[in-house]
Amino acid sequence: MTSMAPSTEMLSVPQATPPQITSPTMLVKKEQCVANFRRMWEKSRGAKAILRPHCKTHASLKIARWLKEESSRSIDGESLNQITVSSLRMAEYFAGEWNDITVAFPVNILEMETINRLGCKLVKLNLVVENVEAINALSAGLSAEAAASIGLYIKVDVGYGRTGILATDFGQMEAVFECLRQSSLLSEKFLGFLAHAGHTYHCRGVNAAAQIREIHALAKTQMLKLKERYIGDYPRLKLSYGDTPSCSVLSAAELDCWDELRPGNFVFYDLEQAAIGSCEQSEIAVAVGCPIVATHQGRREITLYGGGVHCSKDRLGDEAEGTIFGRIARRQLRSNDDKLFGWDGVLEGVYLRSLSQEHGIVVVPTSYDMSSFRVGEILYVLPVHSCMTADCLKYKGYLTTDGENVERMKN
Amino acid sequence: MTSMAPSTEMLSVPQATPPQITSPTMLVKKEQCVANFRRMWEKSRGAKAILRPHCKTHASLKIARWLKEESSRSIDGESLNQITVSSLRMAEYFAGEWNDITVAFPVNILEMETINRLGCKLVKLNLVVENVEAINALSAGLSAEAAASIGLYIKVDVGYGRTGILATDFGQMEAVFECLRQSSLLSEKFLGFLAHAGHTYHCRGVNAAAQIREIHALAKTQMLKLKERYIGDYPRLKLSYGDTPSCSVLSAAELDCWDELRPGNFVFYDLEQAAIGSCEQSEIAVAVGCPIVATHQGRREITLYGGGVHCSKDRLGDEAEGTIFGRIARRQLRSNDDKLFGWDGVLEGVYLRSLSQEHGIVVVPTSYDMSSFRVGEILYVLPVHSCMTADCLKYKGYLTTDGENVERMKN
Repeated sequence: MTSMAPSTEMLSVPQATPPQITSPTMLVKKEQCVANFRRMWEKSRGAKAILRPHCKTHASLKIARWLKEESSRSIDGESLNQITVSSLRMAEYFAGEWNDITVAFPVNILEMETINRLGCKLVKLNLVVENVEAINALSAGLSAEAAASIGLYIKVDVGYGRTGILATDFGQMEAVFECLRQSSLLSEKFLGFLAHAGHTYHCRGVNAAAQIREIHALAKTQMLKLKERYIGDYPRLKLSYGDTPSCSVLSAAELDCWDELRPGNFVFYDLEQAAIGSCEQSEIAVAVGCPIVATHQGRREITLYGGGVHCSKDRLGDEAEGTIFGRIARRQLRSNDDKLFGWDGVLEGVYLRSLSQEHGIVVVPTSYDMSSFRVGEILYVLPVHSCMTADCLKYKGYLTTDGENVERMKN
Repeated sequence: MTSMAPSTEMLSVPQATPPQITSPTMLVKKEQCVANFRRMWEKSRGAKAILRPHCKTHASLKIARWLKEESSRSIDGESLNQITVSSLRMAEYFAGEWNDITVAFPVNILEMETINRLGCKLVKLNLVVENVEAINALSAGLSAEAAASIGLYIKVDVGYGRTGILATDFGQMEAVFECLRQSSLLSEKFLGFLAHAGHTYHCRGVNAAAQIREIHALAKTQMLKLKERYIGDYPRLKLSYGDTPSCSVLSAAELDCWDELRPGNFVFYDLEQAAIGSCEQSEIAVAVGCPIVATHQGRREITLYGGGVHCSKDRLGDEAEGTIFGRIARRQLRSNDDKLFGWDGVLEGVYLRSLSQEHGIVVVPTSYDMSSFRVGEILYVLPVHSCMTADCLKYKGYLTTDGENVERMKN
């Protein structure tokens, strides 16, 4: 016997095992990504807002290309030319193909060298500031060449409480403006106010849409008040807003107060977004293909090769099931097409109850025949939080359901 | 002005910012790792058990070398020659320098090609099985050359309920033995029983040690019963046991029933292990160095560049503080040694209350002077679960507190 891979027949690998998947693999449905994008693109245009999609979820040049291609089908010839990222290293990754990038994270004064490098490379590098320390550091450390492409947003906290200047803290706001005005290098760089209403992620259930509307209404009031206050000094100031729940749930008409929208997760969506009401479970465009390594008939559980290092430990509280780490689908078997890696609908009541480093434990209710789940089958784990899951598997990138490898930023 | 990095003075970077650390970086105290190892090495020898440390936490050839070097100082000339890993890809990484490796994860029948490749490379490749499917797949797919180095452990579930054959399920146990006996290739490959009492991770507080003793006593009873049952057929069968809480809390005398011990996390330890009582907080050998990007005086919070993709989302429930994602220490400032990247003791009451993808939010109680925390300072996040945190930052590897870069397996 040679050390070649044994044939499928010899190992009696179940039909539910697509070839190529032998260990945890992030699968992506290209058509679903494009459909999710198309809806957001059209909504943004309806809202007369620039769509600057956040790329931190997919972090892939190729997937960003899918979105740009789709946008270029617009009748009026408009296409996607600007993106958002969450770190300077991500900006460096995308700078090869995109030249108008917003880094939606407070300036880290220790990375001035990278900022200068990026500033020289891009046409527009938009940074986010919220304190005088960052402005002083930029003022002192930015090269003249890099400064030419820099624009600055002031980060506003509209109630999420993560970071940013409270929309009502005019003292801090004035201190930052004063600091900007006094910098010869930066005094003309102010672009506008940027907010992320991340507290929409806590909205759940039947009242979620109403709660999101309330959060959005308050954010709108606060941001418009700031605009009113500063528009005299900065007639071109813009309001940039972005979170997937708001942008998914609200209509174009409701979003028409914003100059720019920055949702990101919507390209993939995930179980959390489905729980919020941003999407249907069927619109989730990614899943982690994980081999079954053991079945436990007695307690109706399955052990997957697929743990916290593959799926991430983000969790979701479910009333009926308690804490869940993912939901499960099975391979879509259509004719004899071996090349199809897609998955069918989510199996009702089947979920990941726990994750350790490499193991995932799946619970199977009595409505399913346990013996139909076989060692060697690939189960499809729909992630709770696709941003974190995709990051876990960045070293492998993605496999499309058509069998195409898609690279992702690796570091 | 050039695009060179600006001087520290220009940016007024705080003294608490060690050079080289500009973005989230996993720091490791080599001396603490070695001390943690030395204690476990001596305890194993006291217990007359082989120590086969699990390498999934550090996943680094260099750190494994530190441990081997330390072991070679033993008076009797014994040294560490065997390790445990959690996946075949990890076995491939370590196979360059180690030739006796146990993969403590149920055989994944889809990776027969890798098993064959590894089997040909190693002197001993010990695999773990718990069902007939895996044995049949090995029997059919293993090459004769690879088979020469293969040994098989049967995975026993001693109460954790994650995976393995229940120690009381003699039906399943017999089915597996029958399958082994009928395989001409594998009938001589049985090495013994392997258990992981992962439920010790749930032990907390003043009763933790007593709870761990209870779990261990039950595991011992179950495993010795299996040994007694099968020792007639397999006179050389071994019992392999391993989890960091048991191996840390119990004495050598208590552990003397085992032929082999496989703890892993103990080299680094973490906040969870400190909560269990496996270690003191001062014995935690790793921390993530994260830049402060914003301070919020009013609500006494700090925004770190350091989120779920750097620290992992493992959490710990604390009675006083609720859910925490990490504790905080500050740079150890000794004389004017700029090269020292170490940290001082944990700041009482200061902790990470939440993590999003790139942001970490730190809470600071009123007993600290908020204004002493400055934008640009590096805070040291002690991880809840070091295995997961180290995996997040694998692409960067580690930086020792002496400034040495330490590579880690990247995929």
